[in-house]
Amino acid sequence: MEKRFEISLLFDFYGELLTEKQRDVMDLYFNNDLSLSEIAEINNTSRQATHDTIKTCEKVLLVYEEKLKLLNKDHKLKETLKNIILELDNLQIDIKDEKMHQLIYDIKAQISENI
Amino acid sequence: MEKRFEISLLFDFYGELLTEKQRDVMDLYFNNDLSLSEIAEINNTSRQATHDTIKTCEKVLLVYEEKLKLLNKDHKLKETLKNIILELDNLQIDIKDEKMHQLIYDIKAQISENI
Repeated sequence: MEKRFEISLLFDFYGELLTEKQRDVMDLYFNNDLSLSEIAEINNTSRQATHDTIKTCEKVLLVYEEKLKLLNKDHKLKETLKNIILELDNLQIDIKDEKMHQLIYDIKAQISENI
Repeated sequence: MEKRFEISLLFDFYGELLTEKQRDVMDLYFNNDLSLSEIAEINNTSRQATHDTIKTCEKVLLVYEEKLKLLNKDHKLKETLKNIILELDNLQIDIKDEKMHQLIYDIKAQISENI
């Protein structure tokens, strides 16, 4: 997984465990795609200090993932659910009854909401 | 949810975020069902100190749940998956083809592994 993408996912999972100030910087950098200089200007600080904050947060997020493995577990669960949808697709091909077809469609929709 | 049961579930989710010493005490109390006095004896400390450790851990676990809501999310996901299994049960009743029956059975087994 590309590092920036991984950190942004970890931020989704563990962001609430950072301080509000850290969260703001991470949000501007990963979700709003601002540059270090732009974030530094907003916070009235230096580019280097902003860079350090992001690096600290990255380390903290990686430690949380090492301990709780939420991203890893979530990834596995989603793979399982995607696989189940594929199997339901196969089942749907063989089913001609319209009511049963609709039922499988509804089940797939419920599963998709969790992917 | 009964408090002791809730704390024991939260310990499953967030136990890794406690210190090793805290984890040991919580494990003896919630998973091995030892009394405060028995845990105090093992750790060569007082019943009161053991009680305090458990109360501190409970507060820490509740703060993590307030921030990350893993138990809450997990509960909702499991309810959804249980509901999907019920719907697959209904579908299975109407299906006579043995191969399709087996396919639904396999899908249910995959879902059950995550409940």
